[in-house]
Amino acid sequence: MIWHDLRDSHDSELDALAERYHLHPLHIEDCRHRNQRAKVEDGEGYLFVVLKPAHINRAGELEITDFDLFLGRDYLITVQEGECPSLRTNIDKLHASVDRSRPDQLFYKIIDAAVDAYAPVLDWYNEAIDEIEDKVLEKPAPDTVQRIFDLKRGLIELRRILTNMRDVASHLQREETDLIQRDLVPFLRDVYDHVARAVETVEMHRDLLAGAMDIYLSSVSNRTNQVMKVLTVLGTIALPSIVISGFYGMNTKDLPWIESPHATIVAASLMVITTAGLLAVLKKFDWF
Amino acid sequence: MIWHDLRDSHDSELDALAERYHLHPLHIEDCRHRNQRAKVEDGEGYLFVVLKPAHINRAGELEITDFDLFLGRDYLITVQEGECPSLRTNIDKLHASVDRSRPDQLFYKIIDAAVDAYAPVLDWYNEAIDEIEDKVLEKPAPDTVQRIFDLKRGLIELRRILTNMRDVASHLQREETDLIQRDLVPFLRDVYDHVARAVETVEMHRDLLAGAMDIYLSSVSNRTNQVMKVLTVLGTIALPSIVISGFYGMNTKDLPWIESPHATIVAASLMVITTAGLLAVLKKFDWF
Amino acid sequence: MIWHDLRDSHDSELDALAERYHLHPLHIEDCRHRNQRAKVEDGEGYLFVVLKPAHINRAGELEITDFDLFLGRDYLITVQEGECPSLRTNIDKLHASVDRSRPDQLFYKIIDAAVDAYAPVLDWYNEAIDEIEDKVLEKPAPDTVQRIFDLKRGLIELRRILTNMRDVASHLQREETDLIQRDLVPFLRDVYDHVARAVETVEMHRDLLAGAMDIYLSSVSNRTNQVMKVLTVLGTIALPSIVISGFYGMNTKDLPWIESPHATIVAASLMVITTAGLLAVLKKFDWF
Amino acid sequence: MIWHDLRDSHDSELDALAERYHLHPLHIEDCRHRNQRAKVEDGEGYLFVVLKPAHINRAGELEITDFDLFLGRDYLITVQEGECPSLRTNIDKLHASVDRSRPDQLFYKIIDAAVDAYAPVLDWYNEAIDEIEDKVLEKPAPDTVQRIFDLKRGLIELRRILTNMRDVASHLQREETDLIQRDLVPFLRDVYDHVARAVETVEMHRDLLAGAMDIYLSSVSNRTNQVMKVLTVLGTIALPSIVISGFYGMNTKDLPWIESPHATIVAASLMVITTAGLLAVLKKFDWF
Amino acid sequence: MIWHDLRDSHDSELDALAERYHLHPLHIEDCRHRNQRAKVEDGEGYLFVVLKPAHINRAGELEITDFDLFLGRDYLITVQEGECPSLRTNIDKLHASVDRSRPDQLFYKIIDAAVDAYAPVLDWYNEAIDEIEDKVLEKPAPDTVQRIFDLKRGLIELRRILTNMRDVASHLQREETDLIQRDLVPFLRDVYDHVARAVETVEMHRDLLAGAMDIYLSSVSNRTNQVMKVLTVLGTIALPSIVISGFYGMNTKDLPWIESPHATIVAASLMVITTAGLLAVLKKFDWF
Repeated sequence: MIWHDLRDSHDSELDALAERYHLHPLHIEDCRHRNQRAKVEDGEGYLFVVLKPAHINRAGELEITDFDLFLGRDYLITVQEGECPSLRTNIDKLHASVDRSRPDQLFYKIIDAAVDAYAPVLDWYNEAIDEIEDKVLEKPAPDTVQRIFDLKRGLIELRRILTNMRDVASHLQREETDLIQRDLVPFLRDVYDHVARAVETVEMHRDLLAGAMDIYLSSVSNRTNQVMKVLTVLGTIALPSIVISGFYGMNTKDLPWIESPHATIVAASLMVITTAGLLAVLKKFDWF
Repeated sequence: MIWHDLRDSHDSELDALAERYHLHPLHIEDCRHRNQRAKVEDGEGYLFVVLKPAHINRAGELEITDFDLFLGRDYLITVQEGECPSLRTNIDKLHASVDRSRPDQLFYKIIDAAVDAYAPVLDWYNEAIDEIEDKVLEKPAPDTVQRIFDLKRGLIELRRILTNMRDVASHLQREETDLIQRDLVPFLRDVYDHVARAVETVEMHRDLLAGAMDIYLSSVSNRTNQVMKVLTVLGTIALPSIVISGFYGMNTKDLPWIESPHATIVAASLMVITTAGLLAVLKKFDWF
Repeated sequence: MIWHDLRDSHDSELDALAERYHLHPLHIEDCRHRNQRAKVEDGEGYLFVVLKPAHINRAGELEITDFDLFLGRDYLITVQEGECPSLRTNIDKLHASVDRSRPDQLFYKIIDAAVDAYAPVLDWYNEAIDEIEDKVLEKPAPDTVQRIFDLKRGLIELRRILTNMRDVASHLQREETDLIQRDLVPFLRDVYDHVARAVETVEMHRDLLAGAMDIYLSSVSNRTNQVMKVLTVLGTIALPSIVISGFYGMNTKDLPWIESPHATIVAASLMVITTAGLLAVLKKFDWF
Repeated sequence: MIWHDLRDSHDSELDALAERYHLHPLHIEDCRHRNQRAKVEDGEGYLFVVLKPAHINRAGELEITDFDLFLGRDYLITVQEGECPSLRTNIDKLHASVDRSRPDQLFYKIIDAAVDAYAPVLDWYNEAIDEIEDKVLEKPAPDTVQRIFDLKRGLIELRRILTNMRDVASHLQREETDLIQRDLVPFLRDVYDHVARAVETVEMHRDLLAGAMDIYLSSVSNRTNQVMKVLTVLGTIALPSIVISGFYGMNTKDLPWIESPHATIVAASLMVITTAGLLAVLKKFDWF
Repeated sequence: MIWHDLRDSHDSELDALAERYHLHPLHIEDCRHRNQRAKVEDGEGYLFVVLKPAHINRAGELEITDFDLFLGRDYLITVQEGECPSLRTNIDKLHASVDRSRPDQLFYKIIDAAVDAYAPVLDWYNEAIDEIEDKVLEKPAPDTVQRIFDLKRGLIELRRILTNMRDVASHLQREETDLIQRDLVPFLRDVYDHVARAVETVEMHRDLLAGAMDIYLSSVSNRTNQVMKVLTVLGTIALPSIVISGFYGMNTKDLPWIESPHATIVAASLMVITTAGLLAVLKKFDWF
C-alpha cells in the first residue's frame, strides 16, 4: 500500500493525486479551505474524512485545525491543514509501520491518534477550571469573569467539533463499505466511545464553568453585603456620639448638668452606653 | 433551456408563466406574499423552492427577503421579492453561463449563491459581538444592553431562517426526483454543509452574546460594590474626626486636657491615629 | 351537501345530528366541555376535529375558545363553543358559497379561517412587546414587570394551543382518508405552513420578552448604581467641610491660626480644596 | 366477572390470587413496594398496570400513592397502596355496576377515575400560584420564596408522575392485546387526552412559578433601590444644613456677618435654599 | 458453570482467561483502563458489559468505579476495578448460590446488586440537600455556595453514569442473544425500571439544588436590603438631632430663643418630634 502524507494542502502533489485516483473536485476544494465540519463522505472508490484535531497553543488558546483523509483500496492520502503538534508526533511514529499495515488499519490508527490528541486539551481545561474555582472563592476579581468567558468560548467551540467528530465515529462504525474490513469494527466502536466520553467531559466542564460564574456573582453580592454591614456598624458606633456631642455643643443656656464638673463624663458615658447597646442589638441579629 | 429571471413578483409575466408551465396557484400566491418560510415543495412536473437570503442594510439592520425558484425539466424561473444586493450581484454573473448549463446546474448555482450571501452577514455579527465584548469590559453603559438586545433579536431571526434553510438543503440532497441529476448530489451536500456550519455559527454567536450580557451584569454589580467601598472608606476617614471634634466642641466644663495648650494636638493626633487604624483594618480585609 | 353551523353546543339539534350521523358519544361530550386540546380523531365514517381559535378581548386579554368540526361524506357540522369574533365574521362569509363547495373544501376553508384569526393576535403581541421594550428603556417601573408577566402568561398559553394546532395541521396533511380529496393536500400543507410560522413567531416573542425582562433587571441595577454614586458624591462634597468645621469648632485653646483674622478664610479654602481634590479623583475614575 | 378490590397490599389474599391467576412474582413484589413508576407490563394472560394517583393532604402537601391493576380475561384485581381519598370515593361507586360490566370496561373506568383525581390537585396548585402572585406583588417577604420553592418541589414531582402516566395512557391506547376490546379505544384515547392536558397544565404552572420568582427578585431589587433613594434624599436634606451650621460653629474670629444680628437668618436661608436646590435637581432626574 | 471473580484487573489470570475464552483484546484493555463508559458490547460467543457502581467514600465524596462482566455460555467473568464496598458485600453473598444458578441468572443478580448500590448514594444526596435547604433559609453563608456547588458537581457526574447505565439496561432488555434466556426479560425490565427511577431522582435533586441556590441568592439580596433599612433608620433617627444641634451650635448672635432658659428643651423637643415624624412615615411605608 502507499501512504501519501501531505503536509501542505496547497502542494501541487495533491492535484496529481486527485487526477490519479479520481478524487472529486469538491473534496480537493474542501482540503484547501480550512474550517470544514468534521464529516465522512463517500467518493467513487474511496472514503473522504475530515477530522478536526485540536490543541492548546503557546498563547494558551484553543486552536483547531483540519486534517483530511482519503481511504482507497490500496492507498491512503492524508492532508494536513494547519499544525497540531501532538497529532503530528503521533503520525510521524506511524510511518515506521506502514509497510505491514493495510490501508484501513492505518486509517484507523490515524483517527485514533487524532482522538487521542483531544485528551491533553481536556486536561488543560480541567486544570484551568480548577484554578478558576479556587480563585473565585478566594479572591474574585473582574478579570476572573473575562477568564471564565474565554474558557466558555473555547468549550463552546470544542463541543461543536467534538459533536461532529462523534457523528463521524458513529458513521464510520456503521458504514457499509468494503474499504473497511469487519475486524476493524470493534476498534472503530472504541474510537466512538472515546469521542463520546470527550463530549460528556466537555458538557461537564460547561456545567462547572456555569457554576463558577454563579459562585462569582454570589460572592460579589456577598461582598457588597459585607461592605454595607461595615458601613452600618461604623454608623452605629459614630452616630450616638455625634448626636450627644452635638447636643452639648449647643449654645443654649439650660443644657442639663452643664454647670456640673462631671458633665463630660456623663456625656461620654451616654455615648459609650448607647453605642454598646446598638452593637448588642446588631449582634443579636447575627451581624458579626 | 430558458431562465426566467423575474425581479418583481407582481410582474404580469409571472401569470403568463404560471399558465404556460401549469404552476400551482398556491405557489404563485406564495411568490407574491413575502415572509414565507424557506421550503421545498413538489409541484406537477416542477420543484418549488423558497429561499430566504439575508443581508445587513445601510442602517445596520438585518434584512431578510424571499427568493423563489421553479425548477422544471427545461426551464428555471426565479422570482425575487425584495432586494438582497450580494445575492443579486452573484445572480447577475450567472447570466453569462446560462446557455451551457442544465436547469438543475443553474438551480444549484443560485442556491449556492444564496447560501454564500449569509457569510458577510455572519461576519458582520462576529465583528459586532467582538466590539460589544470590548465595550462591556472597558466601559459598560446602559445603551450596551440595548445593543446586545438588538443583536440578539437579529440572531434569533437569523437562526430561524437558517434552520429552515438547512431543512431545505437536507431535503434537496435526499429528494428523489428526476429533475435533479445524480451528479449534483455531492454539490447539494456541500450546500447542506455550508448551511449547517452557518447554523452552528449563529448558535455560537448567541452563546457569546449571552456571555456578554453576563459580563455586563457582573460588571454593574462590581461597580456598585466599588462605589460602596469608596463610600465606606470616606466614612472611615471622616467619622473618627467628627466624633472627636464633636466631643471637644461640647460646652461642658470638664473636658479632659481642655486647659492644656496642647489639647488640639492631642485631639488631632487621636483623629489621625484612629483613622489610620481603621484603614489598616480595611486593608487587612483586602479592600484596596 | 349540508352544512350544520351550530352556534351553541348545548343546542338539542346536536343530539339529533349525533343520532342521524352516528357520531361517537365521546365526541359529542367533547363538544360540550370546553378546554379540549386541538386534535383530529377518526370517527366511523367521519373525521372529528377540535380547533382552538384565539382572539384578544376588549379587556386586552387573550381569550381562547373551542371550535369543533365533523366532516362526513356529504355533510359538515361545525359547533362553536364561545365567541371568537374574527373567526365568526370569516365563517359567516362562507355561507354564500356552500352550495358550490364540496364538504372537504368548506372544511379546509373553515380551518384556514381559524388559522387566519391568529394573525391579529400575534400582531397585538408584537405591538405590546414593542411598547414594553420602549418603556423598559425609558422609564422602568414595577408595574412593567407585572405587564411582562401577563404577556408571558398569554404567550405560554398561545404557544401551547398553536403547537397542538400544528400537530392537527400536520396530521390532516398526511391523513389517509377518502373524506379529503387529493387536490386539497397542497392547501392543507399551506395551512400547516401558516401555523408553523405562527409557532415560530410566538417563540420569538417569548425570547424578546425574556430580553425585555433582562433589560428591566439590568436597568434597576443600573439605577441603584446611580443612586449610590449620587450619595457618594454628596458625601464627598460634605465630609471635608464637616471635618474641618468640626475641628475649628473645638473648644480647645491651641487651634492653629485661631487668633488670626483670616482663620475662616483658611478653613474655608481648605474645605473647598479637599472637596475639589476628591471630586477630581472620582472624575478620574470615570464617575461622571 | 370477578373484581378483587384489595385495600391492603400486604393482605394474604394477594398471595392466593397470585397463585390462582399465575401472576408473576415481580409484579406481586411491585405491589408491595411503593414508589414504583407508573407503567404497563404484559404478564402471561393478564396486563399489569401501576397508576400513581395524587391528592393534597390535610397538611397542604402533595401526596402520591400507588394503585395497581391486574386485568385478566374474566377478572380484575386492584391493589391500593396508600390512601387517595378522591380516588377511593370514585372506586367505591363503581362496585354497584360490576355485574353488568366487562373486566376491560371496569378497568377503563378505574383508570379514568384515577386521572380525574388529578383535577382537584391541579386546581389547588392553580389557586396557590394565584395567591403567590398577589403576595409577591403586594408584600414580598422571605417566606414567599420558601413557599414558591415548596410549590415548585411539588410540581416537579407531579410532572414526573404525570409524564409516566401519559406514557401508560399512550401505551394502553396502542396496546395490541385481546384483553381490551376495540370499542374501548376511543375511551382510552380520551384518557390520554386528559393526562396530556394535565401535563401541559403542570408545565404552565412551572413557567408561572418561575415568573413569580422573577417578580419576587425584581421587587427585592426595587425595594433596595427605594431604600437607597430615601437614604440619599435624607442625606440631601441634611447635608447642607450640617455643613453650614458647622461653618458657623467654628471658633474662628472672622466668620462673615458673624457680628450682624441677622446672621442666623442668613445661615438658615442658605440651608433652605441649598436643600431646595438639591431636591429640585433630584426631582429633575425623576427620583420622586 | 464457572464464575471467575477477579478483584484486580491487572491480575495475570485475566490474560489466561482471555486466551481460554477468546476475549477481544480491546475488551481486556477496557478492563484495565478505568473511566470507561457503562456499555454493552457483543463479543464472539460472549457479552461484555461495563457497569459503573458508585458510593460515597469516607471523605463524603462521590466515588465512581468500574465493574466489568463477561457473560459466556457456561461461564461468567467479573472484573472489579476500584473498590465499591456496598457492591462488594452484595457480590460476596452471591458466591453461595453459584452452583445452582445459570450464568445469565448470576449475571442478572450482579447487575441488580450494582443498581441497588445506587440507592444509598441517592439517599445521601437527599439528606445533604435537605440539610442545605435548612441552612440556606436559616443562616446563609458563603461556604453554603461552595457546598451547593460540590453537590451539583457530584450530581452532574452521577447523572452522566446513570444515563449510560439506563442505556445498558434498556439494551440488555432488548438484546437478541441466546446467552440470556427469555424468562430473565421481566427481571431485566425491572432493572431498567430501577435505573430509570434513579435518573428521575437525580434530575429532581438537580432541580432542588438549583432552587436552593435561588433561595440563597434571594436571601443575600434580602439581607442587603435589611442592612440598608437599618442604616436608613439610623440615619433617620440621627439626622434631625444633628441638624438642630448644629443649628444651635452656631456662634451667630440672633439664634431664636437663645436667651430663653428653655431653649434646650425647645431644641430637644424639636429633635424628638421630627425623628418621631420620620419614623411614622417609614412605618407607613411598611418598613418595620
